[in-house]
Amino acid sequence: MPTEIPADSVGLVSPQIAHFAEPLVLACGRTLADYQLIYETYGELNAARSNAVLICHALSGHHHAAGYHSMDDRKPGWWDSCIGPGKAIDTNRFFVVSLNNLGGCNGSTGPSSLNPQTNKPYGADFPVVTVEDWVNSQARLADVLGIEQWAAVVGGSLGGMQALQWSISYPERIRHCVAIASAPKLSAQNIAFNEVARQAILSDPEFHGGHFQEQGVIPRRGLMLARMVGHITYLSDDAMGTKFGRGLKSEKLNYDFNSVEFQVESYLRYQGEEFSSRFDANTYLLMTKALDYFDPAAAHEDDLAATLAAAQADFCVISFTTDWRFSPERSQEIVNALMAARKNVSYLEIDAPQGHDAFLIPIPRYLQAFRGYMNRIAV
Amino acid sequence: MPTEIPADSVGLVSPQIAHFAEPLVLACGRTLADYQLIYETYGELNAARSNAVLICHALSGHHHAAGYHSMDDRKPGWWDSCIGPGKAIDTNRFFVVSLNNLGGCNGSTGPSSLNPQTNKPYGADFPVVTVEDWVNSQARLADVLGIEQWAAVVGGSLGGMQALQWSISYPERIRHCVAIASAPKLSAQNIAFNEVARQAILSDPEFHGGHFQEQGVIPRRGLMLARMVGHITYLSDDAMGTKFGRGLKSEKLNYDFNSVEFQVESYLRYQGEEFSSRFDANTYLLMTKALDYFDPAAAHEDDLAATLAAAQADFCVISFTTDWRFSPERSQEIVNALMAARKNVSYLEIDAPQGHDAFLIPIPRYLQAFRGYMNRIAV
Repeated sequence: MPTEIPADSVGLVSPQIAHFAEPLVLACGRTLADYQLIYETYGELNAARSNAVLICHALSGHHHAAGYHSMDDRKPGWWDSCIGPGKAIDTNRFFVVSLNNLGGCNGSTGPSSLNPQTNKPYGADFPVVTVEDWVNSQARLADVLGIEQWAAVVGGSLGGMQALQWSISYPERIRHCVAIASAPKLSAQNIAFNEVARQAILSDPEFHGGHFQEQGVIPRRGLMLARMVGHITYLSDDAMGTKFGRGLKSEKLNYDFNSVEFQVESYLRYQGEEFSSRFDANTYLLMTKALDYFDPAAAHEDDLAATLAAAQADFCVISFTTDWRFSPERSQEIVNALMAARKNVSYLEIDAPQGHDAFLIPIPRYLQAFRGYMNRIAV
Repeated sequence: MPTEIPADSVGLVSPQIAHFAEPLVLACGRTLADYQLIYETYGELNAARSNAVLICHALSGHHHAAGYHSMDDRKPGWWDSCIGPGKAIDTNRFFVVSLNNLGGCNGSTGPSSLNPQTNKPYGADFPVVTVEDWVNSQARLADVLGIEQWAAVVGGSLGGMQALQWSISYPERIRHCVAIASAPKLSAQNIAFNEVARQAILSDPEFHGGHFQEQGVIPRRGLMLARMVGHITYLSDDAMGTKFGRGLKSEKLNYDFNSVEFQVESYLRYQGEEFSSRFDANTYLLMTKALDYFDPAAAHEDDLAATLAAAQADFCVISFTTDWRFSPERSQEIVNALMAARKNVSYLEIDAPQGHDAFLIPIPRYLQAFRGYMNRIAV
């Protein structure tokens, strides 16, 4: 917990909730009659309403991106290193909006919400949502907040995909698109890792076809395994090597299946167990599906340049050298398509050993370049 | 099934069994009082007994490396592309011995064997075996077969680790060591993937603490997940992309959790399910542990050159460009240590898109180079 709020923090913040009664038609063909989105804002909307920045979260993210909910919080929001007074997304200049996506498990309508038609939790009956659906729901939130056009839409990983989709779905409503550690679509290997995570959850006997909440249980083992395999893909081989190497948990080897021999095993188990107690299994499935389905060029004969032709935004694309989940080559696919479509694009490849997770880490060169781009945005 | 046996096949072969009544003391401190090894041989041992080649298998391998057990076999042994008359390991020149390792599930004593002390299957009570233990048990098999010195010990992946260990444990009994797609020890990331596989098995309710056989069940889900995650690491990102890309299983998307949307999902599930019906869960755990523990340099203050100083063999080290499980850099660690220790070493890095699995695939340049090295071995 902070004994005092740091000077470059947005300080104490409170989430708000927006209700939407107008039905939302989803890509899967189903309709959400009624839903809510939980969100936070940092900074002040200017009189011209021209300084709003939307933050889109990744697989396990949520609305609480910066600041503290109380003085008892152990940690600030998940992107506090990048959002605050004088930071890359400078709250002295920008009005920042950060939401939990539809299908999430942190306060927006999702699988653990009550289905008004049955008065039971949706569970696995919650419709599959896509990046396009999220962007449509975010546009409605912008309407509620009186934001006609975002100064920027910003996100890392799956969040970067939402930023890209904004430039395609609502070209006139976004001036800058910042896509960090992202990709224009998943590779077969990316899908394969997601599929392992899904099978771990689906095959857990406590999953109960997605209606575990009604049974009063949690598919803890499945979620733990899903997170463990995901976590390996977030870190680089080098980062894991530097952090753990072959370090042992105790002084000697135990030669059995139940002991933890290596520190990396203990770290992974802890990450998996911690995650399984705080995240919803159906939301995890939904998020991996949204990743798998994202492929905006599919509707344009796989021509990403043609897909982005109508975009009016300027683009900033950032990648990290050791990211093997979405490698620099995947960001370059976006950059090449943008150049072919004659868009303004800045590309930064940051030399960083941390792998995919680098986008969450305060790496000086990354923060400096990111701040440089954001500071040049006119508001 | 073969309608006729190909001319370059070793033909119809039959496994044999060797019983060992002399107790084997294991690295874990426990002792196996009595055990058997199942093995096959191809070619003829010459009068000087100087032409014997030992094949060491990888994680899910076994003794049946070449030829057919019957005319009804759908496929030949797992390394048939490399073993046979005129092939890389030429059975016109060499007497080839291939065994199933201790702890295996294909006929050698392992977790599914009866524990003579309880008259029940060992299950999880089977002792943890290491690469060193395997090499010791293989040396006893050599004694039984009257082979004082191997012309070569050859293996891929975990098999390559056994070949390396032979050169360290029995320097006078091996003239050539061929280590393909291998590594001198696992990285933290390698261990992490193994740990996910183990947790998938250990947390399967049907595992029953490793005594599932007595319960008449199989931890099928755990084994399936373990194989799925393993399989991703055997293929390169490129190979998966070329083989499946984002190809769909049916013509349109289903937008649910139970349908198979992408071909790569269907492939992985098939691989996992097929494996879970033929492999023993306790053996899988043992094999991953043997991989984790392998680290011959640990006893020499992490100095691999010092570890290999007493070796008398010549070495052939082969790696594959897109192998990210044991990348070329891992093979180069072995090569650099061997050069520092002033050993004779040939190193080949084969340009191949198939990833780690390349060592099992008949890639022309690989076969040619491998055959070239083997043909120069005097017998």
